Amino acid sequence: MGVHTYFKSLSDLEHLYRLPGKFKFQSHTVAAHSFKVTKIAQFLGTVEEMNGETVNWRSLYEKSLNHDYAELFTGDIKTPVKYATVELKELFSQVEEQMARKFIEAEFPEEFHEAYFNRFKEGKDSSLEGRLLSVADKVDLLYEAYGEILKRNPDPLFFEIYEEALTTILKFQELHSVKYFIDQVMPDMLAEKFMPHSELRDLTERIINRCE
Amino acid sequence: MGVHTYFKSLSDLEHLYRLPGKFKFQSHTVAAHSFKVTKIAQFLGTVEEMNGETVNWRSLYEKSLNHDYAELFTGDIKTPVKYATVELKELFSQVEEQMARKFIEAEFPEEFHEAYFNRFKEGKDSSLEGRLLSVADKVDLLYEAYGEILKRNPDPLFFEIYEEALTTILKFQELHSVKYFIDQVMPDMLAEKFMPHSELRDLTERIINRCE
Amino acid sequence: MGVHTYFKSLSDLEHLYRLPGKFKFQSHTVAAHSFKVTKIAQFLGTVEEMNGETVNWRSLYEKSLNHDYAELFTGDIKTPVKYATVELKELFSQVEEQMARKFIEAEFPEEFHEAYFNRFKEGKDSSLEGRLLSVADKVDLLYEAYGEILKRNPDPLFFEIYEEALTTILKFQELHSVKYFIDQVMPDMLAEKFMPHSELRDLTERIINRCE
Amino acid sequence: MGVHTYFKSLSDLEHLYRLPGKFKFQSHTVAAHSFKVTKIAQFLGTVEEMNGETVNWRSLYEKSLNHDYAELFTGDIKTPVKYATVELKELFSQVEEQMARKFIEAEFPEEFHEAYFNRFKEGKDSSLEGRLLSVADKVDLLYEAYGEILKRNPDPLFFEIYEEALTTILKFQELHSVKYFIDQVMPDMLAEKFMPHSELRDLTERIINRCE
Amino acid sequence: MGVHTYFKSLSDLEHLYRLPGKFKFQSHTVAAHSFKVTKIAQFLGTVEEMNGETVNWRSLYEKSLNHDYAELFTGDIKTPVKYATVELKELFSQVEEQMARKFIEAEFPEEFHEAYFNRFKEGKDSSLEGRLLSVADKVDLLYEAYGEILKRNPDPLFFEIYEEALTTILKFQELHSVKYFIDQVMPDMLAEKFMPHSELRDLTERIINRCE
Amino acid sequence: MGVHTYFKSLSDLEHLYRLPGKFKFQSHTVAAHSFKVTKIAQFLGTVEEMNGETVNWRSLYEKSLNHDYAELFTGDIKTPVKYATVELKELFSQVEEQMARKFIEAEFPEEFHEAYFNRFKEGKDSSLEGRLLSVADKVDLLYEAYGEILKRNPDPLFFEIYEEALTTILKFQELHSVKYFIDQVMPDMLAEKFMPHSELRDLTERIINRCE
Repeated sequence: MGVHTYFKSLSDLEHLYRLPGKFKFQSHTVAAHSFKVTKIAQFLGTVEEMNGETVNWRSLYEKSLNHDYAELFTGDIKTPVKYATVELKELFSQVEEQMARKFIEAEFPEEFHEAYFNRFKEGKDSSLEGRLLSVADKVDLLYEAYGEILKRNPDPLFFEIYEEALTTILKFQELHSVKYFIDQVMPDMLAEKFMPHSELRDLTERIINRCE
Repeated sequence: MGVHTYFKSLSDLEHLYRLPGKFKFQSHTVAAHSFKVTKIAQFLGTVEEMNGETVNWRSLYEKSLNHDYAELFTGDIKTPVKYATVELKELFSQVEEQMARKFIEAEFPEEFHEAYFNRFKEGKDSSLEGRLLSVADKVDLLYEAYGEILKRNPDPLFFEIYEEALTTILKFQELHSVKYFIDQVMPDMLAEKFMPHSELRDLTERIINRCE
Repeated sequence: MGVHTYFKSLSDLEHLYRLPGKFKFQSHTVAAHSFKVTKIAQFLGTVEEMNGETVNWRSLYEKSLNHDYAELFTGDIKTPVKYATVELKELFSQVEEQMARKFIEAEFPEEFHEAYFNRFKEGKDSSLEGRLLSVADKVDLLYEAYGEILKRNPDPLFFEIYEEALTTILKFQELHSVKYFIDQVMPDMLAEKFMPHSELRDLTERIINRCE
Repeated sequence: MGVHTYFKSLSDLEHLYRLPGKFKFQSHTVAAHSFKVTKIAQFLGTVEEMNGETVNWRSLYEKSLNHDYAELFTGDIKTPVKYATVELKELFSQVEEQMARKFIEAEFPEEFHEAYFNRFKEGKDSSLEGRLLSVADKVDLLYEAYGEILKRNPDPLFFEIYEEALTTILKFQELHSVKYFIDQVMPDMLAEKFMPHSELRDLTERIINRCE
Repeated sequence: MGVHTYFKSLSDLEHLYRLPGKFKFQSHTVAAHSFKVTKIAQFLGTVEEMNGETVNWRSLYEKSLNHDYAELFTGDIKTPVKYATVELKELFSQVEEQMARKFIEAEFPEEFHEAYFNRFKEGKDSSLEGRLLSVADKVDLLYEAYGEILKRNPDPLFFEIYEEALTTILKFQELHSVKYFIDQVMPDMLAEKFMPHSELRDLTERIINRCE
Repeated sequence: MGVHTYFKSLSDLEHLYRLPGKFKFQSHTVAAHSFKVTKIAQFLGTVEEMNGETVNWRSLYEKSLNHDYAELFTGDIKTPVKYATVELKELFSQVEEQMARKFIEAEFPEEFHEAYFNRFKEGKDSSLEGRLLSVADKVDLLYEAYGEILKRNPDPLFFEIYEEALTTILKFQELHSVKYFIDQVMPDMLAEKFMPHSELRDLTERIINRCE
């Protein structure tokens, strides 16, 4: 039924939860993830620009915003399944692309086809913008895992995800923004600690003494 | 880490929601669905037995209880994706089976391997029990769709699911229990209506008059 | 309104939460609990069979699946209330049974009455299957408490539940499957530990060094 | 552990949901219900006072605030169970009172015992304040049922609750505040209607025409 | 539409969450908060009375019950915003009061105006009851923060809230009930500890040994 | 603590719910809203470009992504409060800007200050991109209200929001994309209807007949 269907479908991404089938203290939807990835890509692009690189901002934003839209058609298939065999991965990408194409042809008037074919294509190519998307996607995943670890989720899965995300980010070490992230942002993340429960008594005594 | 890992994994099915990416008034987990399918299969088996058929109850319960366990490894992949091409469907089944096999070999001591290979196998075969599972699975899906329609979910998807579920059930019309379901259960489902809001005023007046 | 009402009532068990009135990190419904108890009973029965016992599988599955259905009529009354006095416990069991009987008579055609009277009866008798249900019910409760302790729920209640569940399981020490659970499963549960937050820094450094 | 335990227990009422085991669009906790009942009792008391009655405000507030605190010990037992037999009802009341008494003796220093025995006693006696509590409790229940009916909950249960609540309120017709509720408040409730979806088109056209 | 609108609005407070925009393990609504503050005020008033003070109970209950009702009109604006400048704070109070007044004039018949103007006025004045409300409001906030700290919420915000709440409570040290809270209640709060996960193994061994 | 704090704050927007204090069938977070507004702005910009306008894409994306970030500091203050008096509105804008500025100065290294001052500034200016943001923001609000109306939320508020949103969109009728939205998208929205529950019986009969 046209662009109306497309606009309505945006809300479906608010009902798609990342990492289904696992206990998490904090759940994240694909809509929120897409928002955060785009904001992180914006920051990474800013660092690149400050270091003399030319960023195609329109491309960076388009790639980031749309990078998980196809999950609407496929669901959030667990990564080990997606990549179980080379054949499967290949077939899978084809199916994902076909379904996106079919959706665009069904819902968008013809004059929009090309623009949206491009927007729904896999964005993680070797361009600067494609690499920044790859990094931004993993930075948000790293933060999701970090959030669970900090809240003391006992599932070792989150350490594995943290490790996988960081390892992928480090594959792009040639980027100024990755250097910045490793050198300037991560130390703050790791330095963070929270007051143990045992300090509550001291804090309380200090407040009481101060007020007397 | 052995059977402990298997026992813990049962709880993961409480975090796997059916039909992700769609607004529903009422969500259903794979754990709850498995419970309901087994209870429905129990009823269908009872009808078969009352009509002189021999039911292998152990097999019927095993098939029903375990029929969606593999979703733990694959996530809830949207059906249109799973069946997009014959090749993909084939590959998917293989991957699903491999992952279940790998899990069993990793977690269960050897003496349990055979029992659990059989339990995690696709149960919807042509045996009476396999067919009863096929029907029970769709009866619960029908009720899920019906629940949304009754609550006035505006998404036409639920009419499509209702139609697909009923059509599949009717493919097993030769079963006594399917005849029973169509002839005895569905009329009650369709007869159900709820008092419209407009009757509230009448009801109120009747109560007030009665109490005066 | 017949079997349709029974099928619909299955979904009510998805709205009945265990242990109401207490903060939990992870909630469990009666539907999901029934599913897990039946899966655990399946495993326990398998161990018995491997040790030469004869298991009546149909009975074991029926008992497990249905063991909490009556909570639909009574709600999840807190155990200390249920057992406050011998008289109350006795009266309570009577009421529960009467309500189940009334439901069956109201909703099921007569030919199903006997089958469902049996299914809704208290299943925890002294038969092998009755004892396996008693154990399976407490194993799932143990896992529920363990899950909260692992996530660091500060309420001492979960230690009490853990203790009560384990104590009850140990009353059935004569069962092969209880021996198996204590000797083979529990050590893995107790050996489980999660990387403390402080290891995050080390892990990070190792990853960075490895990638450079 | 004293009054600290009492203060902490208040938060448990935020985890106790009313009408468990039923699909509702909107859930209500015992904490929120207690708040609303007290606010409604406040209004009813105001009407009584304006009509020349003497209201013991301290008593009215104490009764309202505390009227469901004992559910903390017993859970929210379904009414048909509670009242299944006269004997059971009697025993239940005794158990509830014993548990409240035991809690007070365990947690409160002795100088508070009498005050809290009185506060946790059944408040629905024949005093003006006791009757106002009976009415306020049912007015909130009526609003809960009405909210579901308005949102088109298809479960006929909510019509039954509405009917039961209104019938009970009408048993107190001799109260000025009940007369006020029936004559002045209920007509507004019943007059409420919402624009049907079909008017959306008209509204849209009117807005567009107005803006052109 | 009159008092009906007022009664319905009470339920809106069940949809207003405190401290929006922050991860919490346990959320609290304004309705539940109002309930708990009133119960705490009740206890504090009891302590005052036992120490020879005269408590105007009607006033204490009215102030407590209604103290956050105006948030219905304004939302839960973050405190640093509210108090950013003296001017803003001043304007803000005026707007809040105007909106409450407008609501009362629109919904309540004239004979109720005065009573409700008084009820919706800021209750934290210098009377005994006003001071008891100030304390009760902060005691509940203290418990909210304490609950997060105990569950190991890593956000330092909850230590800040704990500190701010306790500091405010101590400003009312002249009150008997504040002395009681500091001397009798807080030590129990601070003494509370939960068994570390590591004790699970010991506990298990003790239970097993005891049962053998 | 630097950019790490900024990255973490993005997740806070996942905990900020729009339209607090009202019953909604479907809740929306500020994070998801920001995502959808940016996607809608992308579409509107595409229409402008196809009609010969020059779109500054970088600016359009920056404005859309960041337009509600300041709610992190202020909460979601109800619009009638924000705009109660001209003075208040003025003061509010100042406070909002000051708080964003303070955050940037505290968390970002100096080289990023200018970029982020611009990003967190009010984006709804008279530039093409500013106007497209104004429209996109209201289109998403329109869809939020429409979603509630379609699900039959009885609160007339959603009709009022629908009206307000559409009226604001129409203030930008000179834009090609607004014309497109009114002429091409809205008719599909209004034509949407869902099969009434009563058609379920017909559908069922048709399926049964077809399968026989």
